[in-house]
Amino acid sequence: MNKDLLAVAGGRKPADLVVQNGKIVNVYSGEIYDGGVAVSGGQIAAVGDVAYTVGPDTRIIDAGGNYITPGFIDGHIHPESSSLSIRPFAEIMLKHGTTVIMTDLHEVGVVGGLEAIEAVLDEASMTDLKLYFVVPSHVPFSPFLETSGGKFNTEIIEKALKRPDAVGLSEIVGPYVLAGFPDLLQSMDVAAAMPGKTLQGHLPDMSGPAMNECLAAGVSTDHESLSAKDALERLRGGCNLMIREGSAARGLADCIKPIIEQRLDTSRVSIVTDDLHTIDAVDRGHLDDAVRVALKAGLDFIKAIQMVSLNAARAFELDQEIGGLAPGKRADINITTGPEDFKVKTVIAGGKLVTEDEKLLVSYPVADHKPCLLNTMKLKNPITADSFKYYAPEGAKRVKVQVMDTLPWIPITQGREVELTVADGVIQCDIDQDVLYIAQVERYGINGNIGKAFMGGFNLKRGAIASSVGHDNHNIIVLGTNFEDMAVAVNRVVELNGGQVAVDGGQVAAEVSYPVCGLLSDLSAEELAGEKKTLIAKIHEMGSNIPIPFMFLSFICLAALPMFAITDHGFIDVLTQQIIDPVLEVLE
Amino acid sequence: MNKDLLAVAGGRKPADLVVQNGKIVNVYSGEIYDGGVAVSGGQIAAVGDVAYTVGPDTRIIDAGGNYITPGFIDGHIHPESSSLSIRPFAEIMLKHGTTVIMTDLHEVGVVGGLEAIEAVLDEASMTDLKLYFVVPSHVPFSPFLETSGGKFNTEIIEKALKRPDAVGLSEIVGPYVLAGFPDLLQSMDVAAAMPGKTLQGHLPDMSGPAMNECLAAGVSTDHESLSAKDALERLRGGCNLMIREGSAARGLADCIKPIIEQRLDTSRVSIVTDDLHTIDAVDRGHLDDAVRVALKAGLDFIKAIQMVSLNAARAFELDQEIGGLAPGKRADINITTGPEDFKVKTVIAGGKLVTEDEKLLVSYPVADHKPCLLNTMKLKNPITADSFKYYAPEGAKRVKVQVMDTLPWIPITQGREVELTVADGVIQCDIDQDVLYIAQVERYGINGNIGKAFMGGFNLKRGAIASSVGHDNHNIIVLGTNFEDMAVAVNRVVELNGGQVAVDGGQVAAEVSYPVCGLLSDLSAEELAGEKKTLIAKIHEMGSNIPIPFMFLSFICLAALPMFAITDHGFIDVLTQQIIDPVLEVLE
Repeated sequence: MNKDLLAVAGGRKPADLVVQNGKIVNVYSGEIYDGGVAVSGGQIAAVGDVAYTVGPDTRIIDAGGNYITPGFIDGHIHPESSSLSIRPFAEIMLKHGTTVIMTDLHEVGVVGGLEAIEAVLDEASMTDLKLYFVVPSHVPFSPFLETSGGKFNTEIIEKALKRPDAVGLSEIVGPYVLAGFPDLLQSMDVAAAMPGKTLQGHLPDMSGPAMNECLAAGVSTDHESLSAKDALERLRGGCNLMIREGSAARGLADCIKPIIEQRLDTSRVSIVTDDLHTIDAVDRGHLDDAVRVALKAGLDFIKAIQMVSLNAARAFELDQEIGGLAPGKRADINITTGPEDFKVKTVIAGGKLVTEDEKLLVSYPVADHKPCLLNTMKLKNPITADSFKYYAPEGAKRVKVQVMDTLPWIPITQGREVELTVADGVIQCDIDQDVLYIAQVERYGINGNIGKAFMGGFNLKRGAIASSVGHDNHNIIVLGTNFEDMAVAVNRVVELNGGQVAVDGGQVAAEVSYPVCGLLSDLSAEELAGEKKTLIAKIHEMGSNIPIPFMFLSFICLAALPMFAITDHGFIDVLTQQIIDPVLEVLE
Repeated sequence: MNKDLLAVAGGRKPADLVVQNGKIVNVYSGEIYDGGVAVSGGQIAAVGDVAYTVGPDTRIIDAGGNYITPGFIDGHIHPESSSLSIRPFAEIMLKHGTTVIMTDLHEVGVVGGLEAIEAVLDEASMTDLKLYFVVPSHVPFSPFLETSGGKFNTEIIEKALKRPDAVGLSEIVGPYVLAGFPDLLQSMDVAAAMPGKTLQGHLPDMSGPAMNECLAAGVSTDHESLSAKDALERLRGGCNLMIREGSAARGLADCIKPIIEQRLDTSRVSIVTDDLHTIDAVDRGHLDDAVRVALKAGLDFIKAIQMVSLNAARAFELDQEIGGLAPGKRADINITTGPEDFKVKTVIAGGKLVTEDEKLLVSYPVADHKPCLLNTMKLKNPITADSFKYYAPEGAKRVKVQVMDTLPWIPITQGREVELTVADGVIQCDIDQDVLYIAQVERYGINGNIGKAFMGGFNLKRGAIASSVGHDNHNIIVLGTNFEDMAVAVNRVVELNGGQVAVDGGQVAAEVSYPVCGLLSDLSAEELAGEKKTLIAKIHEMGSNIPIPFMFLSFICLAALPMFAITDHGFIDVLTQQIIDPVLEVLE
């Protein structure tokens, strides 16, 4: 029992900090009324009339008649999508009023297992952003189709679930539940048997009996709604609906429609971002931006605030700790302008003033990263231009090849049959037909695998690009117009200890380095956004018309995303989950 | 993982039972729409369009176009107030659509400790009523002012909290938190550290800093609101508001007013009964009656249903298990008429049809009670008329006495100074002034204590009444116009192994027996209600004008209820928590 907190609440001791002269956005009663908030240590002691808590040494924050809301909570976000290591990530979150996130740190787990995840959670603990850990339900995604650094089994999952900050199992994939994967069902049973651990779903395209089965299995949230129909079915099914408004998918405007029009109950609706890129975070913001989108769609101010605070806490049974302005809750407090021109001005996280008038007041030192997070680029064999050559059947001169094309607005691939020539036994790319070389190079020093295929849709006209970020294994993915540039690109990524590079005419033209796990940078969000913009501009200059080329590239490695994928194991037919030969036929 | 359930939800196996042709009251989305519910075993497999789950052996229940709601949940009820043992209690609950209760079984604990509570929980487990156990935070209420059979300390509380059905700590008394009682704070810390265990408050008359302090201490619910102001303060404070509409207190009409008028958020508002007497249960019903009251006050139908289902589940973080019609939830399903004439017609509890067309289909056998629940009336010394004599100071002929008067509508006492005569050294009651003898006789065979005082307000004109139900110690309370009838009454209560009796002219005139813990009857609710009505009528015939005399009598023993009380320790000044002498002055 925190006796100081009780003494402040009871009026026997002055508050450490008081926000006064504001409009309380009360997410519990659904009201807005004049008042203030008193803080003791990291918790709220009183809300409303808090004059009795002010003493001579109490720090006073004048809200200037603005709104006082709870700090925002993102119930489903992968910090790794920002490419920021966790401390600069915490800074950009806090700047936009997000004080709590729920995250599985799945990508870090793919590279370094639970040890690496725990190292990142340790690094986060000195920041003012509160992390709840949602244990990855599978690492990697497709253990038989890719090589990863870290691997999870039920035993590791059980160990992870026992952490006090663990609040559930993450990304429970609907089709895997339907397929009855024994390891997954066992892990779900383990989590369900532990009080306070929730089953977080990943249920794209699920409907009717399939959806019912996932819910019957105990899945209690989903963030994969793309339409009003999806959203309504999940809400009706008792599922906590997490509407996604991030960088990779923005479903809020569509999903919120029936909720507003039919005046549905919103107590189980929250807004999450899932993936948020640094450039978006810097240029648009985080949940503050989502609130603007929701308001523009016509949602009530108070309901929008509930969707980024109390409702997210509820989805994890954490509303006794976080999510609202009330005595005993974590002192996460935003001062914001009103619904007409919504902006987060001042942020208090865990009782500490972290931003004032939109300026960040905290700057966390670069972490002294644990060894398991560093030097993760380990090639089994040297990489040369020869490494990427795909040899045609003996004697062939022209072949028909299965090419995968990415769609231009979403990294989903479709097949295209193309005729390609063979030179010195090696199948040649065809820039005119937009058929490029793509390969993934295993980078954990385990087997030296290189998977190879042919890719369209990127429209690169020269050079090559490579990245150590590739879902869901984070081997090195490389796309190129020629083998030499591809080799330079991959070797540079290794030299950087991870990163993303564009190579043009044998030279590195632009690059970003990700020394942490080969995924994350220690730069600030603003610095990294600048470097990323330069790199993207270079790739666009090299001919590509994909707005976020490395994001698309990273998803081409995902063995679960239809129709085709490339991993270090080879070219994958996603629907059959088989490795296939891209050569369909020898034409001459 | 329940594979059968998943198979039914997924359409690979037919449902055991399907309710069809109804209007789904969806407490998640806040909608009402046509549909049905499919059940597999004890759980819901599908809701809405469930035609795909019907097989040749599926039992079909036709809702006949009526409403289909979740089973009702009472988040705060003491079954002992019904005077029914737990199986007939379960029957009357189910009859009215209540399928889940949260209860501390505090009264049973006062008599027999955790062993007795666990025995009752065992007896309940074969019924279709689901009990969640909320561990009593204090047994008895005032350990230094009364003798009880069972006693709780932090160690016992911790053991009890570890039960899988334990969901929190019950009746955390606000003033005790403010007083900083170390045992209580320690028990609260123990509970708060265990995921899934909530802190259930008992916060009468708390407001402002006092309320803030209780909430800061982690108390997350309260059922003691008496007014709109109380209700609003609790709701704003992030407290789960449990509005009480029971036999002892009916606050719904008042408390619901601001919620309706100001269109407040109702997601944290539930309705509870706290105490429900058998006669009320039989004549009026349970939460079904509360819904009628709420509807009459103008509350939306769907919101009223949410308040007796989902919202109660949420207050205990149990909404993943119970509280709504959705796949995976316990199959607790009511078929009801609409808001105009609300009645529960048919009830399914845990997948079993328990009532149809308002007729109970289940009848549970009388439990083979464990020894700890039986033979609990143990007198240390024989009781005679002399036992109740209060001796005046040596030589006194007239004395001024502090009499406690009960208010006629609520068992709260006030003081009255009265002059009484002394005969043979014994202070005499005065029926004309409505001053009667009152005493409490210790009945656990521990110390033979008899506390004595003088009582007004009951207006008994002859005879005596006695009862083995007396909060919060359940010793034998006896009120009489003469010592002889008092002795007959107490001895008859002992002979019955517990019960309530009216004695008139040395003869037992009416009685009810409570063989279980001296608190509970194995009769059915209807039978017991009949006996109780006869007994009350007899007491009214003997002159008393108190509508429910034994309920009032039981609260006169509560050392926490102002202004005075009687326990086996003596006459108590509640405000000072001291035992006092009722003789104020010797007049001659």
